[in-house]
Amino acid sequence: MEKLLKDYKSGKITTTEILNKLKSLPYEDLGFAKIDTHRTIRTGHPEVIYSKGKTTTQILKILKTMSTHNQNILATKADKKTYTTIKKQYPNAQYNEPAKTIVIKKQTPKPKKGKILIITAGTSDIPIAEEAKVTAELMGSITETLYDIGVAGIHRLLDNKEKIFTATIIIVIAGMDGALPSVIGGLAQAPVIAVPTSVGYGASFEGIAPLLTMLNTCAPGVVTVNIDNGFGAGYFASIINR
Amino acid sequence: MEKLLKDYKSGKITTTEILNKLKSLPYEDLGFAKIDTHRTIRTGHPEVIYSKGKTTTQILKILKTMSTHNQNILATKADKKTYTTIKKQYPNAQYNEPAKTIVIKKQTPKPKKGKILIITAGTSDIPIAEEAKVTAELMGSITETLYDIGVAGIHRLLDNKEKIFTATIIIVIAGMDGALPSVIGGLAQAPVIAVPTSVGYGASFEGIAPLLTMLNTCAPGVVTVNIDNGFGAGYFASIINR
Amino acid sequence: MEKLLKDYKSGKITTTEILNKLKSLPYEDLGFAKIDTHRTIRTGHPEVIYSKGKTTTQILKILKTMSTHNQNILATKADKKTYTTIKKQYPNAQYNEPAKTIVIKKQTPKPKKGKILIITAGTSDIPIAEEAKVTAELMGSITETLYDIGVAGIHRLLDNKEKIFTATIIIVIAGMDGALPSVIGGLAQAPVIAVPTSVGYGASFEGIAPLLTMLNTCAPGVVTVNIDNGFGAGYFASIINR
Amino acid sequence: MEKLLKDYKSGKITTTEILNKLKSLPYEDLGFAKIDTHRTIRTGHPEVIYSKGKTTTQILKILKTMSTHNQNILATKADKKTYTTIKKQYPNAQYNEPAKTIVIKKQTPKPKKGKILIITAGTSDIPIAEEAKVTAELMGSITETLYDIGVAGIHRLLDNKEKIFTATIIIVIAGMDGALPSVIGGLAQAPVIAVPTSVGYGASFEGIAPLLTMLNTCAPGVVTVNIDNGFGAGYFASIINR
Amino acid sequence: MEKLLKDYKSGKITTTEILNKLKSLPYEDLGFAKIDTHRTIRTGHPEVIYSKGKTTTQILKILKTMSTHNQNILATKADKKTYTTIKKQYPNAQYNEPAKTIVIKKQTPKPKKGKILIITAGTSDIPIAEEAKVTAELMGSITETLYDIGVAGIHRLLDNKEKIFTATIIIVIAGMDGALPSVIGGLAQAPVIAVPTSVGYGASFEGIAPLLTMLNTCAPGVVTVNIDNGFGAGYFASIINR
Amino acid sequence: MEKLLKDYKSGKITTTEILNKLKSLPYEDLGFAKIDTHRTIRTGHPEVIYSKGKTTTQILKILKTMSTHNQNILATKADKKTYTTIKKQYPNAQYNEPAKTIVIKKQTPKPKKGKILIITAGTSDIPIAEEAKVTAELMGSITETLYDIGVAGIHRLLDNKEKIFTATIIIVIAGMDGALPSVIGGLAQAPVIAVPTSVGYGASFEGIAPLLTMLNTCAPGVVTVNIDNGFGAGYFASIINR
Amino acid sequence: MEKLLKDYKSGKITTTEILNKLKSLPYEDLGFAKIDTHRTIRTGHPEVIYSKGKTTTQILKILKTMSTHNQNILATKADKKTYTTIKKQYPNAQYNEPAKTIVIKKQTPKPKKGKILIITAGTSDIPIAEEAKVTAELMGSITETLYDIGVAGIHRLLDNKEKIFTATIIIVIAGMDGALPSVIGGLAQAPVIAVPTSVGYGASFEGIAPLLTMLNTCAPGVVTVNIDNGFGAGYFASIINR
Amino acid sequence: MEKLLKDYKSGKITTTEILNKLKSLPYEDLGFAKIDTHRTIRTGHPEVIYSKGKTTTQILKILKTMSTHNQNILATKADKKTYTTIKKQYPNAQYNEPAKTIVIKKQTPKPKKGKILIITAGTSDIPIAEEAKVTAELMGSITETLYDIGVAGIHRLLDNKEKIFTATIIIVIAGMDGALPSVIGGLAQAPVIAVPTSVGYGASFEGIAPLLTMLNTCAPGVVTVNIDNGFGAGYFASIINR
Repeated sequence: MEKLLKDYKSGKITTTEILNKLKSLPYEDLGFAKIDTHRTIRTGHPEVIYSKGKTTTQILKILKTMSTHNQNILATKADKKTYTTIKKQYPNAQYNEPAKTIVIKKQTPKPKKGKILIITAGTSDIPIAEEAKVTAELMGSITETLYDIGVAGIHRLLDNKEKIFTATIIIVIAGMDGALPSVIGGLAQAPVIAVPTSVGYGASFEGIAPLLTMLNTCAPGVVTVNIDNGFGAGYFASIINR
Repeated sequence: MEKLLKDYKSGKITTTEILNKLKSLPYEDLGFAKIDTHRTIRTGHPEVIYSKGKTTTQILKILKTMSTHNQNILATKADKKTYTTIKKQYPNAQYNEPAKTIVIKKQTPKPKKGKILIITAGTSDIPIAEEAKVTAELMGSITETLYDIGVAGIHRLLDNKEKIFTATIIIVIAGMDGALPSVIGGLAQAPVIAVPTSVGYGASFEGIAPLLTMLNTCAPGVVTVNIDNGFGAGYFASIINR
Repeated sequence: MEKLLKDYKSGKITTTEILNKLKSLPYEDLGFAKIDTHRTIRTGHPEVIYSKGKTTTQILKILKTMSTHNQNILATKADKKTYTTIKKQYPNAQYNEPAKTIVIKKQTPKPKKGKILIITAGTSDIPIAEEAKVTAELMGSITETLYDIGVAGIHRLLDNKEKIFTATIIIVIAGMDGALPSVIGGLAQAPVIAVPTSVGYGASFEGIAPLLTMLNTCAPGVVTVNIDNGFGAGYFASIINR
Repeated sequence: MEKLLKDYKSGKITTTEILNKLKSLPYEDLGFAKIDTHRTIRTGHPEVIYSKGKTTTQILKILKTMSTHNQNILATKADKKTYTTIKKQYPNAQYNEPAKTIVIKKQTPKPKKGKILIITAGTSDIPIAEEAKVTAELMGSITETLYDIGVAGIHRLLDNKEKIFTATIIIVIAGMDGALPSVIGGLAQAPVIAVPTSVGYGASFEGIAPLLTMLNTCAPGVVTVNIDNGFGAGYFASIINR
Repeated sequence: MEKLLKDYKSGKITTTEILNKLKSLPYEDLGFAKIDTHRTIRTGHPEVIYSKGKTTTQILKILKTMSTHNQNILATKADKKTYTTIKKQYPNAQYNEPAKTIVIKKQTPKPKKGKILIITAGTSDIPIAEEAKVTAELMGSITETLYDIGVAGIHRLLDNKEKIFTATIIIVIAGMDGALPSVIGGLAQAPVIAVPTSVGYGASFEGIAPLLTMLNTCAPGVVTVNIDNGFGAGYFASIINR
Repeated sequence: MEKLLKDYKSGKITTTEILNKLKSLPYEDLGFAKIDTHRTIRTGHPEVIYSKGKTTTQILKILKTMSTHNQNILATKADKKTYTTIKKQYPNAQYNEPAKTIVIKKQTPKPKKGKILIITAGTSDIPIAEEAKVTAELMGSITETLYDIGVAGIHRLLDNKEKIFTATIIIVIAGMDGALPSVIGGLAQAPVIAVPTSVGYGASFEGIAPLLTMLNTCAPGVVTVNIDNGFGAGYFASIINR
Repeated sequence: MEKLLKDYKSGKITTTEILNKLKSLPYEDLGFAKIDTHRTIRTGHPEVIYSKGKTTTQILKILKTMSTHNQNILATKADKKTYTTIKKQYPNAQYNEPAKTIVIKKQTPKPKKGKILIITAGTSDIPIAEEAKVTAELMGSITETLYDIGVAGIHRLLDNKEKIFTATIIIVIAGMDGALPSVIGGLAQAPVIAVPTSVGYGASFEGIAPLLTMLNTCAPGVVTVNIDNGFGAGYFASIINR
Repeated sequence: MEKLLKDYKSGKITTTEILNKLKSLPYEDLGFAKIDTHRTIRTGHPEVIYSKGKTTTQILKILKTMSTHNQNILATKADKKTYTTIKKQYPNAQYNEPAKTIVIKKQTPKPKKGKILIITAGTSDIPIAEEAKVTAELMGSITETLYDIGVAGIHRLLDNKEKIFTATIIIVIAGMDGALPSVIGGLAQAPVIAVPTSVGYGASFEGIAPLLTMLNTCAPGVVTVNIDNGFGAGYFASIINR
């Protein structure tokens, strides 16, 4: 483009010609770099691969492209076998087995101030909680966990009320009846991100029951992400954790 | 039948003949009275008309048949217009407007000992609660109500913990997220009958959301009835209130 | 707290001071013990682990915590492999194979008077019935079973009418059309707890069909629990079996 | 075509020419009359107009076309206002108000031997039953009705067992739990046509619950038609009533 | 009972006494034998075991009971392994592999006159068609099959119009769009029994799509059974094949 | 921008300065006009207002903006009252009552060659067909209609086979079983656009049944649009009618 | 309680006695005030009444209780008639007609720094956007709106990219395909709160389609609230707007 | 038939006789050849086998029949094992592993002018895209692919705007939120065929979420095929690619 302008200045091309050429230039060279600049701010966050439904070959190819950037990489829903293959080429890859996450760290994330409290209703919800935790920490957030304090034993919940009252952001993960976010939302002043899980049987319908519960919560200050989407909750929690 | 036996005794008919005749008799005259006897025990309870989808003419015809019995009568989901028409022929008919119930009392129900606590999550759930209350009282139960103590403000719930701890049976009525029965079920020792309501909007899908929540409750000791079925809850609560 | 009071009495701290201190004390030390006391009454019942979706390591960890209490333990939906591992550490663990339940008994449950009749529509519903039976018996209830007397052969049902008429509580378990609880509810005077099962194919949709049938039952005196929730039915039956 | 053949015979056209011409003739003039012949057998049955979603003008136009045939006419799901308009032009039109059917008779249907027994579970199912009855009678069938003998009071059903045992074909109409066809199917030897109705509330979901119940019936010898499709049941019953 | 009557005749017991005793007798000994008599007529048909969800041990136990009767036995949805085990004890057991049916014949079924035409839309629907065929033939029906003549190639269908026009009863089996029964129902004069199958992918939702298509058919004279219920169609076709 | 370039040429600003300025210019002034140019090609087509859920005030405001362009305007799903108000300000507005469309023509659409055949299964599907017709004609297409030739009377369909064989594009509109597009798709060589309608009752579930049928069609060459989306079908048909 | 302590100090009651009495005191008087203190922080936010399903009498009663507090009041989903009645008793009540909100202000909300950008895909989504706007402003947030910039005309969206890039928090409201939040989420660095609306027809199923789209968004940084829940989005946006 | 005509000419049969005989002839011999002629035009396209749910034996049998024709053959959704078996008998069979297609070519398809652009939102959608590509190319279309340019990174999409603007027909394949076709439909002038995929998790419900998104698209000029139906999209694209 610089050349174009100089040609114009030197009279090699007319005003009409340069105007036409500018219009036919790929717009990316012009105004749209702006988008990329803005995106860079967000890309302080990790690059993410959703591994399910991808072959290991495909994942490796994506990793190769990503490796030319300087960002941390997070692969979610990755099985151990995929990890073992990746580990050979990326020796600093780390696997969180319950979370099914692979992390390839290239830089220490800029630390964020607020504390994200991650709560699960049951033991079986822990894998999704760990996915949220890995994500949030890779984005610089401090996390704390409270596992297995479901609504059915409300005293366990009340025993931890200090943590609930002082958290900056709360992620609540629950399957089956999905009632915990409503209760936490009624107690806490922090924003609550609710994650329904596919844990349960019968009329939980692979997570539909807790999803509907959470969408219909009577407590304001509660939002919802997709079933089993621990990553989404951890990511959102971190971007509001300024 | 008595005649048959006498004919037999007097020799008019043989043993073979009477045996054949007995076998061909309508069974109702024989063993099946037994069923009726048993049913009578339950019919200490009111006779019930589900009014929706019935014309006033049909309801009046059913009432006429029922009137030959000596049982109390309960019409549910009845609009005021139906009541006005009925009142003319049955002057002692009583209408509970929010509950949409018509009661025609013929006898004072035998009082039952236990107290049924009827709880609603919100104000809009009260009509269904009233339906449960009318039903339970017509069956001799003592009731107490706690309206509008939803899960979102858990301290309101805890303020009433004495009532919750001492109730014999608890009916919990909730729309939207339907989370209240899980919380009550986790606190109380009494059996809990959960009633989802069609109160709500969007993803509550006319009561599907709270229905699924209740069916998936993590608290044991909770059972569920149909959406908006206050009658069913009041009835069941009364038959286990011995 | 005793110390606090004595300090106050001895004049070490003022009335204002002690009032402030009392208010900042963790509430558990004060009034909330009450909840625990109340819960103890219910905890005469077994402690329960829902095994599906939990690793054997997690189950063993939960068992270890529970072992410090003096209550019976019931693990539901547990496969045989889990049982074999547990058996090594808890030699008195007992497995009911069709029910998929593991029981670790520490005390004989206080016997309850009423008889719980457990009925199934088909042979394939028996595992859920056995789960209900194991649960109810562990809570001190006497049970009796009537398996495979589905609605399609109503004479089989009528052959057992004496049992149906004399039961204190009835649990009815059915998949496919789920019609049996309606019929039992129309015959019996006892409260009926209906359990839909995922038995069936095509439009039974893994138990949705019988679940809807049961929720819509025309017979009053019938309540419903989640699909395949034999435990829930057995538990509820036992707490209303006073 | 006759002309074509004569031209051929007279030698005006060759064998090749007539073969080509025949092939290019609209097939309706040739073999396909056969279809019509076959259909005529069925069209001994009435011509039918499904009135919902049609304007009165459209219905009148359809009636005009039909009037050139010599078959009886049946309009279903027709409101009274439509009937009043039609009556002016077709004075022998007859309206069955609960059934919402208009019948214009042009001939007495050929009587059929077997008796069709039409049973409803509740009072609110009667309109659909009447639709089936009107249809079946217009097709020459003898019908008998047993209204309001739902499954919840099984003795009412057993009181009518003679009728159930002797019917040629049985139509069973039920909303809510839709359990009655299963019970009738288990008792009767006749084929059973089940009709789910949109009667009910909450989890009956406008007829989905009884539809699923009927499709999943454990009793063989039961088939199902669409929700509220009394016409379909009456029609099918009549064509198998030979 | 005979003794009872003789005691009465001889004066050992009074009229009142015998009347009371008769009433308390198990009803089965009296009128209800009648039900059995009636059922016998239908039980000219085979006894049926739905094998899915039953262990081989359970199936063998049911077979043992059935073996004391003199009826043919049909096990549906049985895998080959089950068959192999059964074959050892019942050497005359016959397996139809695509149909997944086991037949143990004890008598030649009484032949029925009408011909049942079994049509499938696709090749993948054949197993369900074979299940219908085995069932119908075991009940004495003559069957004829037309496989793979789906709606997309309407000329294949028209090529077989003679068979369609002359069949007594038609069973139409289709997955995916389930459109074939509507077309057959528009062509044929015979009653049509539609069977949706779980064949298909995506928005066929395991058979929901063809099920809804069939329930909504515009062609009168069509009824529907459960998804993949070839047995039900074959059974119903045979009982209307008089 | 021209000024910017001249300032640069005249040396008023440096190369660096003009580069920075160009980058910060709103991109619309540069490359993105391109998008608009491309869109203009499509905007030879009408501008469209979906009227449902909009107030008349909102529609008038949108019309005002559109009026500054020179394109034809089409408002869909508009009731007559809205039309009457609009007519006052736009006297050349035309209303198609069954179609519920308002057309404001500003230019005669460029005629397209191919003929679009619009077929409905029933009379009640005509409004959606008319919506498709109005849309297609406003985009320059020639249309022909074949109304009420549903699958149940296949001979009516075959009577019109010439039209079906010679159409360039076919739109098939059907409610209830939605089977017609499969049949047309099996007969015709033209591409078929299937439109499910909400016509029907019971298990048609407001158009879900025909939608699923169409998505699952066994005939290749068939695509589907939203329920009742006559506009979408007419629009798509016209853009492939080149 | 002060009296209790003084009695203890003066020796009127023993240490044991005061300990027992303290334990039996209602806990609210003790530790639980703490919950209220914490809640007060949040209650800087308005008190909220969901008006749908409540009678005007009930709303007035709730308002009366709320009036004793010093917080702003917000009634959502309130029709104009309700407003008119309320206005008489609360003259400073303000009604936003499209938003269907009533606001009774008692204090100016503490201003918050960040700007909340509220975007709608279509004109019909505006009422929900206005509900979000009223809520956010009552909680002290600055809002800006971008209405009717749906995904189908992506240049309209890009024209506003500066606003999208600079917003602190973005609320995106869309019915029908619900695709807009995914696009905004891919462009913006701000957290996105997605609100599905019931705007649309056919397969939008009253908002299910956009709800599922939003839950499944491929863009991280997007969370979802219930269908038509403008209030929930505005509330959540404000509590993360610190 | 020739003989018939000659017999007629020679006077062996009368005009009446020949007319009757012609009417009873199988219609295929007459007018209906016409249908086949028309179909032949379409059958320039490949013959297709949907392999899922078919045994290899069945597929081989179908192939044998097809081999007597001179058309190309396409087997979709075929696993590698099936291919290996087929390859032995049809050595020129070609397998596309991600697409799961087997092609047996007998002739080079007649080339078509327009270019079909096949776009996927993600990497996991590629198999369905490949199925569309194989189909389109076998029908003579030129294809170009743009994989993995989902809506979340809109700049990737804009980078390829030239391809999008110049394509004749566009196929857009997306799982999860399914938003891409709406965006492409808003940018492009070409007709867009949207293919939802079962890629995703949680509330994508095996493709229901993207299917609904696509059906509800706000962009006109977009039509939809079944979930994962790459073949259908490729086929339709080719028949409109004239």
